[in-house]
Amino acid sequence: MAILKDFTIGFYKIPLPVVLSDSTHGEITAFELITIRARDADGAVGTGYTYTVGRNGGAVADILSREIGEVALEMEADDTEQLWHKVWWALHYGGRGGPAVLALSALDIALWDLKARRASLPLWRLLGGFDRRVPCYAGGIDLDLPLDGLLKQTDDNLGKGFRAIKMKVGRPSLAADVARVKAMRGHLGDEFPLMADANMKWTVEEAIRAARALLPFDLTWLEEPTIPDDVEGHARILRAGGVPIAAGENLRSLWEFKPYIAGGALSYAEPDVTNCGGVTSFMKIARLAEAFNIPVTSHGAHDITVHLLAACPNRSYLEAHGFGLDRYIEHPLVLEQGMAIAPDRHGHGVAFDWKGLDKLSAR
Amino acid sequence: MAILKDFTIGFYKIPLPVVLSDSTHGEITAFELITIRARDADGAVGTGYTYTVGRNGGAVADILSREIGEVALEMEADDTEQLWHKVWWALHYGGRGGPAVLALSALDIALWDLKARRASLPLWRLLGGFDRRVPCYAGGIDLDLPLDGLLKQTDDNLGKGFRAIKMKVGRPSLAADVARVKAMRGHLGDEFPLMADANMKWTVEEAIRAARALLPFDLTWLEEPTIPDDVEGHARILRAGGVPIAAGENLRSLWEFKPYIAGGALSYAEPDVTNCGGVTSFMKIARLAEAFNIPVTSHGAHDITVHLLAACPNRSYLEAHGFGLDRYIEHPLVLEQGMAIAPDRHGHGVAFDWKGLDKLSAR
Ligand SMILES: [Mg+2]
Ligand SMILES: [Mg+2]
Repeated sequence: MAILKDFTIGFYKIPLPVVLSDSTHGEITAFELITIRARDADGAVGTGYTYTVGRNGGAVADILSREIGEVALEMEADDTEQLWHKVWWALHYGGRGGPAVLALSALDIALWDLKARRASLPLWRLLGGFDRRVPCYAGGIDLDLPLDGLLKQTDDNLGKGFRAIKMKVGRPSLAADVARVKAMRGHLGDEFPLMADANMKWTVEEAIRAARALLPFDLTWLEEPTIPDDVEGHARILRAGGVPIAAGENLRSLWEFKPYIAGGALSYAEPDVTNCGGVTSFMKIARLAEAFNIPVTSHGAHDITVHLLAACPNRSYLEAHGFGLDRYIEHPLVLEQGMAIAPDRHGHGVAFDWKGLDKLSAR
Repeated sequence: MAILKDFTIGFYKIPLPVVLSDSTHGEITAFELITIRARDADGAVGTGYTYTVGRNGGAVADILSREIGEVALEMEADDTEQLWHKVWWALHYGGRGGPAVLALSALDIALWDLKARRASLPLWRLLGGFDRRVPCYAGGIDLDLPLDGLLKQTDDNLGKGFRAIKMKVGRPSLAADVARVKAMRGHLGDEFPLMADANMKWTVEEAIRAARALLPFDLTWLEEPTIPDDVEGHARILRAGGVPIAAGENLRSLWEFKPYIAGGALSYAEPDVTNCGGVTSFMKIARLAEAFNIPVTSHGAHDITVHLLAACPNRSYLEAHGFGLDRYIEHPLVLEQGMAIAPDRHGHGVAFDWKGLDKLSAR
């Protein structure tokens, strides 16, 4: 029995080592990190977190501080389905999306960490160990980099051991996108896995035109070609454009993924464990994708997500995310020949540098 | 030109005069009110608000206080589409639902109030005056009332001038629901408009069974029979149950309404202006419904919404909501022979008792 006794909430603004950019969020100079440490009656602790690209972090921290304790304390921590549904429904009016789901995701991650630590298992084995070696790509947030900067970043990533890379597209000129993808393909050589991410920039017809123009460069997938609210639009782009489509970082529940997966609107499901509802939701989305013979990839939070994909037979690439949270955790992700290795430490094995983070507190 | 210069945010916990109850939220003893006053360079002020049934209000207030000023100040207040989209995208990651949309709704209401006041028009005429007399029903939040209490509340509502009434269903026993609806139909007489609201309580098959059991009692509609995440489920309930279906108070954007309206999954679209994205979104949802020959009703915030329905040729009933916000506004809704009358004051014409509210501040 692990009765929840205490939550400790943190809210930090973390400056980025380099300015990042994509077609929707423009220049990103910092990200927000919101953490929760859940302690049970035995003194065991699980850690969860979520993040934003710069806004709503205060709201997430407010929900964790003001609401979650009232709803979840004194409950059995191992009853993760019970807790998930209790929080989902307690927050439902004014919740069911947005900051409320980010808060729930952070809590759920902490509970799964706690459960795995109490069971003396690494999270990936608790969830159903499949293969701890997970193919991994470097997710560049590089739309505004000049071409030589993009190629230099690519060489850096190759030097770090990456054997797959994603770049941003969605420049004002499609010709510029095509030239950059062509240059990357030339630089990386044939068959090197290369993805491109449009961050919801295009209309459906613009996306079809872009997909067709990018077809010669053998993209593994084209990501988020249009707004996450248009299921049929994604299906049209997939059918008419001819390039596999990945989407999901802006879908906030199992139910939001369902029409995409069941409706033939994506080729790769791409949940983010920190915003889709946590480990509980991520695994359901991955299993739903498996039922439809669709691979699951991931967005963000690679240190947690490596465990989840290591438990999925239909796992595709893990995204190694570009926010540089590695500076504040004890054991950053290990890469071997392009494969990320799920650690054998108990729980998810992510230990934050709380002293370093405290200097960045935004509360 | 009306450049936005200042926002004043309020956050209040308002105790209810009587404890309310429904099948999902249990007993509700207070609601949260979050307000925004937007002042332009000329000193003109528009007022907006949103509310919750008890949680996430702190998050909404945090977003309005922390984020909205940075995004929206110094912009032209009349450019409501521009402002809506700027805020939607600024909050999108970690937004696109939940508290972020409630915050945006409050801002958007304030901007439309300001626009109408500057134009010296009542909001309903600014939006496209159709008929200021809007059919109206009393929305009872009364699941746990004993039958005699339910009938007494009904007599009170008849005494106030209501000529249509909604009651809650979703008790543990369907037989109890049926007995209560039957008693209400007997009490009100044939043809008196009576609706029933299940607040997402049922599975699809339970809802079909309930609809069939309630069919003899001539409900105008059955509301929210199941979770708002299941479009096809609603369509099945509508087809198989035989009772018209209303839904929408838990849908948070035009795009969430679209599959319901375009997919034949509801009979009445029921947006709430304080949580669907404000006046801007409500009117688009109403016009989309019109295109599909579907009436639009409403949820909550009747003092604002009476203006919106007064601008819609496809308007059905306005919900007069049971939270008793009337105690804190200067000119509560006027009823004449069961019709709510959109006021001719400029803007939406809602003036809060700020001194009274200040005593209930939750900041
Ligand atoms: Mg992406
Ligand atoms: Mg309702």
